[in-house]
Amino acid sequence: MPIEWAGLGPELLLTLDRSRPEPLRAQLERELREAIRSGRLATGERLPSSRAMATELGVSRGLVLECYSQLQAEGFLVAASGSATRVAAPAVAPAELPPRPAPAGRLAVDFLPGVPDLTSFPRRDWVWALRESCRDATPADLGYGDPRGAASVREVLAGYLRRVRGTAAQPEQIVMCAGFGQGINLVLASLAQAGMRQVAIEDPGDEDYDVICRRLGMEAIPVAVDDRGIDVDALASTGARAVILTPTHQFPTGMALAPDRRQALVAWANERDAIIVEDDYDAEFRYDRDPIGALQGLAPDRVALLGTVSKSLAPALRLGWIIGPPALLEPLTDEKLLSDRGSPTLEQLALAALIRSGRYDRHLRHMRRVYAARRETLIRALAERAPRVALHGLAAGFHAVADLADGAAEPEIVEQARARSVGLYGMSSYRLREPSGPPQLVLGFGNLSGAQVERGIEAIAELLR
Amino acid sequence: MPIEWAGLGPELLLTLDRSRPEPLRAQLERELREAIRSGRLATGERLPSSRAMATELGVSRGLVLECYSQLQAEGFLVAASGSATRVAAPAVAPAELPPRPAPAGRLAVDFLPGVPDLTSFPRRDWVWALRESCRDATPADLGYGDPRGAASVREVLAGYLRRVRGTAAQPEQIVMCAGFGQGINLVLASLAQAGMRQVAIEDPGDEDYDVICRRLGMEAIPVAVDDRGIDVDALASTGARAVILTPTHQFPTGMALAPDRRQALVAWANERDAIIVEDDYDAEFRYDRDPIGALQGLAPDRVALLGTVSKSLAPALRLGWIIGPPALLEPLTDEKLLSDRGSPTLEQLALAALIRSGRYDRHLRHMRRVYAARRETLIRALAERAPRVALHGLAAGFHAVADLADGAAEPEIVEQARARSVGLYGMSSYRLREPSGPPQLVLGFGNLSGAQVERGIEAIAELLR
Repeated sequence: MPIEWAGLGPELLLTLDRSRPEPLRAQLERELREAIRSGRLATGERLPSSRAMATELGVSRGLVLECYSQLQAEGFLVAASGSATRVAAPAVAPAELPPRPAPAGRLAVDFLPGVPDLTSFPRRDWVWALRESCRDATPADLGYGDPRGAASVREVLAGYLRRVRGTAAQPEQIVMCAGFGQGINLVLASLAQAGMRQVAIEDPGDEDYDVICRRLGMEAIPVAVDDRGIDVDALASTGARAVILTPTHQFPTGMALAPDRRQALVAWANERDAIIVEDDYDAEFRYDRDPIGALQGLAPDRVALLGTVSKSLAPALRLGWIIGPPALLEPLTDEKLLSDRGSPTLEQLALAALIRSGRYDRHLRHMRRVYAARRETLIRALAERAPRVALHGLAAGFHAVADLADGAAEPEIVEQARARSVGLYGMSSYRLREPSGPPQLVLGFGNLSGAQVERGIEAIAELLR
Repeated sequence: MPIEWAGLGPELLLTLDRSRPEPLRAQLERELREAIRSGRLATGERLPSSRAMATELGVSRGLVLECYSQLQAEGFLVAASGSATRVAAPAVAPAELPPRPAPAGRLAVDFLPGVPDLTSFPRRDWVWALRESCRDATPADLGYGDPRGAASVREVLAGYLRRVRGTAAQPEQIVMCAGFGQGINLVLASLAQAGMRQVAIEDPGDEDYDVICRRLGMEAIPVAVDDRGIDVDALASTGARAVILTPTHQFPTGMALAPDRRQALVAWANERDAIIVEDDYDAEFRYDRDPIGALQGLAPDRVALLGTVSKSLAPALRLGWIIGPPALLEPLTDEKLLSDRGSPTLEQLALAALIRSGRYDRHLRHMRRVYAARRETLIRALAERAPRVALHGLAAGFHAVADLADGAAEPEIVEQARARSVGLYGMSSYRLREPSGPPQLVLGFGNLSGAQVERGIEAIAELLR
C-alpha cells in the first residue's frame, strides 16, 4: 500500500510504497529530488523537521535524517546548523529534447549496398569464441592494454592475412580498431600529423571522406575511376601524396584495379613518397577466381591496409584492423591511444580463436556459396524481366552495377521504386564531382534472400525497361 | 618431402611441400611473391615458361598458369601476349620497423591508481550475458545501427542510473561509447563544434586533456582543487564556459565536491551558459555512506555525464556512456557516427542483460566488500609501519592520498621504491600548473590483494618515515 503524503500542500506529493523492492529511503530521496527538479518544491522552501516528516510517513527519524543529509551532499538541500532544512537548488526541469526525425518506413525489399547477410551471422561460433576468450584471458588482458590490441591476436591476424590476402606485415604493424569507420579516421589523422594536406579519393566513391578530411585540415580531391580502376595519370596530376582506394573491388563500380595500374600506382607512390590507403572491405567474396591479393603485399612500405569483419561477420561487432606502413606506425598508435585507449580485448581474442579454429574460414566458404546463389538469382531475374539492363562489377562482393537505358532518369526510377516499397540507389549519389553520368543503379544483394531479390526485381522491372 | 627448385640459379629457391595442408598453388604463389619482394627475383627478370616450370616442379601446367595469372593480376608479374612472363614490381623489402621501447620490468607490488581488481572480473556472468545477447539480438541489431547505441540498452541504463546515481535523463540522451577515453573525445569535440575555446580542468588532475583540447583548437586551463573540490571562484575568473570535473571522488585527491560548491558550480553554469563535464568514474564504490548522487541529477541541462564499466567490470571491455545535455545531443551523435559509426552492439546488450538480471548489482556489492577490505589493510599497514603518514581521499573508490613528512623528497622516494620493486606515484605528476606542493603519494590498491598491500607497505615503510 503506497503512503501518500502532501504535508506541505497538495503540490508536494510524496509517494512511498512498502511493497516495492526499492528501499524506502531510496524512494524518499527519489521523490524529493523529483519534486525539487520539477519545481513542485521551490528554491528556499522550508522542509518539515525530520521528526515531523518521520511521523507523517511512518518511518524512522534516522531514515529521514539520512535522506536529508544525502540530498544536502548532492546540493539539493541546505541546512545551516540549528535552522530548518531548505530547498537549495534552483528548480531545473530538464529542457525538452530536440525532436528526432521519424525513422523511414520499412521497405519490402531494400537493395542498399554494403550490408552483409545479417541473418547468417554465426551466433553459435561467436558465442563459442567469446567463451574461449573469457576463459583464457589473463588478468592483464582485462586491464588497459597495448593500444594496438592484444599481441596474440595481432600475430594470428598477421598470419591469416599473409595466407589469405597475400599481405607482407609483421604483427607489430597491426593496429586493431573499431571497424573501417574508426580505422579511416586514425589513418587520416596520422597523415594529417605527417603534414599531408591533400588526399585523393575515388570518384565515384564515398563522400564521407570529405567531412573527415576537412575536420583534420585536409582537402579530399576526387579522382576519376573508369572500368580499370582509378586513373593514375589523373592522380599524379593532383598534388596529393595520399590516396584512398578500393583496389580489389572498387566501391561502387565493382571493378578491380588493372595490373598495369597497380604497378603505376606503386611507382607513383615511390616517386612522390606517398601513402596508399587500401580499403580491403569485401575481398573475401570473389566468385570467378581466388581473391586478388592485397596491394599491401606489393608495396608494404607504401600501403596502409584497412580490414574489417563488418562484411565477413557483422557490422555490429565494430571490429577491424589497420596494417600500417612502418613510417606511420608511431602516429597510428598514438592516435589510437588518444581516441579510446584501445579496442575491446575479449572480442579481439574471440576473433583470433575463430580464425585459429578454422571456423572463420568455414563461415567464409559458406557465405561465398550463399552470396553466389543470390548473385545468380539477381542475374537471372534481371535477364528474364529486364533483359536490356547490363550488369557488371559482379566478380566479387555483394553488390552490382546495373546500366539503365540511355536517357533513363535515375532519380525518378529511384523515387518510383520507393513508392513500390523497393529501395534503389542511383550511381549519381556516389558521383562526387560530376553528378551527371550514364544512368546506373548500385544494387546491393547481401542482406536479401533469393526470394526477396526476385520479388524486388519483379516489382521494379517495368521501371527498368 | 619438400621439392626444392632453383632453376634460375641458386638465388631463386622455391620450396613446395606436398605434406603440408596448404595447397601447392598457394605455396607456389607465396614463394614467388616472397622471392620478388626480397629482391631474389629482380625487376625485368624472365620467368621460365609455364611448361618448363611445371615439369621442374612436377605439377600440372594449369597450376603454374593459374599462379602466373594470379600474380599478374596482383601486379607482381607482367606478360605481354606471345612473350615471356617477367617480374614487374620493383623489389621492395619492407623497411625495418622502428624499435619499440622495451617494456618496463614487472613490479612486485604496483600502487598504480585507476586499475580495478582484474582478477575479480565476473567471467561467468559476462559469458552468460554475452550468450543471452547473441541469442536475443535481432538481425537489425547486427547491422549498422543507431550511432548512439541500441535503444533497449539505453533504456535499461537510463533507469539504472536514475536509481543508482540519481540522474535525470531520458534514454534519448544516452550515447554509448568506448569507455571514458572515447567519451571525453566526443564531448570535447562537441564543445569545440559549439564554439568553445577554453575548457577548465582540475589541478591536480589528468594532463591528457591538454593534448586532446589542443588538437581540437581549444585550451585547457587548470583550476585549483582544494579539500572541498574545485575552487569555483577561481573557475569563474577564467573565461572558460566548460569544465571537466570528478565531483563525487576527485581524481587524484579523493575528495568529494562540497555541497555549497555544487550549488555555486551550477549557478556559475547557468549564469555563463556553460557545460559541466562530469567524470563519474568510480562512484559505485563508496564506503561510509551511499554514493553521492551525480551532479547531472542536479542540473540535467548543464551537465554531460561520462560513465564507464572500466572500474566496475574491466577496462578491457571499453564500454561507457555519455548522458548528454539536450543542447549537445545532436553534435554528440554526429561525432560518434563520424568516429566509428557506433559501439559494438552485442556487448551493450550484454551489459543490459547483466543489469536487468541483478548480476551487475550483485557484483558491485561483492566488489565493495573486496575493496573495503583492501582499504582496511592499507590503513592498518600504514598505521603500524609508518604511523606518521596521514591518509585521506578514502571515502570512495580504490585509491588514497598519503601525506609525506614535510620536506620529504617525493621523486626520490618513488625512485627508491622502484629499486625495491614497488611502484609508487607522486602527487607532483598530477600537478599541472605548479609541480611543487606538499609531498604526497597517490596509492592505488584496487588491483592488489591484501597480502600485496601489506608486502608493498612493508617494503617501503622505511622510506616513508
